Amino acid sequence: VVVGSELLSGKIEDLNTPYLARALRRAGVLLRKVAVVPDQADLIETALREAMALAEHVFTSGGIGPTHDDITVSCVARVLGRRITRHPEMERLLRALIGERITEVHLRMADLPEGAELLTAEGMIVPAIKAGPIYLLPGIPEIFREKVDQILPSLQGLPFFLAELELRIGEGSLAPHLEAVLAEHPEIEIGSYPDLGSSEHFQVKVTLEGSDAERVRAALEALIASLPPERILGRRDPSAR
Amino acid sequence: VVVGSELLSGKIEDLNTPYLARALRRAGVLLRKVAVVPDQADLIETALREAMALAEHVFTSGGIGPTHDDITVSCVARVLGRRITRHPEMERLLRALIGERITEVHLRMADLPEGAELLTAEGMIVPAIKAGPIYLLPGIPEIFREKVDQILPSLQGLPFFLAELELRIGEGSLAPHLEAVLAEHPEIEIGSYPDLGSSEHFQVKVTLEGSDAERVRAALEALIASLPPERILGRRDPSAR
Repeated sequence: VVVGSELLSGKIEDLNTPYLARALRRAGVLLRKVAVVPDQADLIETALREAMALAEHVFTSGGIGPTHDDITVSCVARVLGRRITRHPEMERLLRALIGERITEVHLRMADLPEGAELLTAEGMIVPAIKAGPIYLLPGIPEIFREKVDQILPSLQGLPFFLAELELRIGEGSLAPHLEAVLAEHPEIEIGSYPDLGSSEHFQVKVTLEGSDAERVRAALEALIASLPPERILGRRDPSAR
Repeated sequence: VVVGSELLSGKIEDLNTPYLARALRRAGVLLRKVAVVPDQADLIETALREAMALAEHVFTSGGIGPTHDDITVSCVARVLGRRITRHPEMERLLRALIGERITEVHLRMADLPEGAELLTAEGMIVPAIKAGPIYLLPGIPEIFREKVDQILPSLQGLPFFLAELELRIGEGSLAPHLEAVLAEHPEIEIGSYPDLGSSEHFQVKVTLEGSDAERVRAALEALIASLPPERILGRRDPSAR
């Protein structure tokens, strides 16, 4: 759940979603959906509820600073049915960080959903916050990335195996071949991506993915066998990523 | 509603959302939410239903080619409660485009929700498709952009006026000033974006936006007046964008 009106207005580009998507992929964790919502409580909460219903882990980006448009924490508390309380350890950390200049506004950042966990790691100035299944990450890309890198090793993922074929063929001609392979290998996910690149011939990249490398390979071989050899421009055998 | 498992797996970066966000902004149309969903009917349909409840216009990206993973059209038909029928004009266009090589697989692209409109324009090879409030756009970025550029002038938007201030201040110290301005100017949207750039002093960009340029200017002046002058690094007066 990516929170930020500035993303929807096109003022700022969302760098966090692509980073998290790739990091989850490497960790073998399936990303089921991304919602980008404005700094508006009803839309944030709807997105959080849907995310919790869909997935084991939920990540938020943005809206956790001290200004008026930072409402992610209160939205998370509401969808979890928890009160907001001042977290003593977070207060201690903020006081150590900010020193004598600290004000009540800074301390708002220690107001967290009851029972929130602080996830710290070597070199992390401010801990990541977890409440229920929700990881609350800051929107600033540099800090978002740092926290993603620290959290992801703790998630239990499964490896994905990915194979690819590059073909010189139109998607219309390719479709029946893909359907035939899928009928025999229903556990394999097959994607087909036309590339309107520089070549004058239409090219398509086909991806085959699954959790069992041998099954991915069998589907790849079946697809190759069904196509005229001159259509095949390149292949990449199954590898984990 | 951005459809594509390849985006969630981090294999491909979503170039279409930033493009559409900026184009809508220029056209004065408020983008309320973005959902990125996999090639999976239940998730696509949930996202479409929510989008239709939230907004006057809905845009989809991807999933409208002829292969097995192209299911956006059937999802749109279901959420609109319409049957899929072969669109005679679309069939004619496809036959003219593909010629004698055409197969039933190609012609699937003419199977559209009943009552779908074809939006054509000078230089467009394949028309954009509109069904109810939903614009069905292809996922291939080059074609997506072409169709966005052709559709957007027909939408009736309102201008937004945006002013900006660059400040050398921490967000914690800034927050009470923003809240005071918001209390006096509730119709103005204020955003606050810390920049962890090269400066050793913490910098924040504040944006003020609204549909009335004079009110945006008044809020900007009020904020400037409330801050010590040495905190202000730069200002940009309200302009339409």
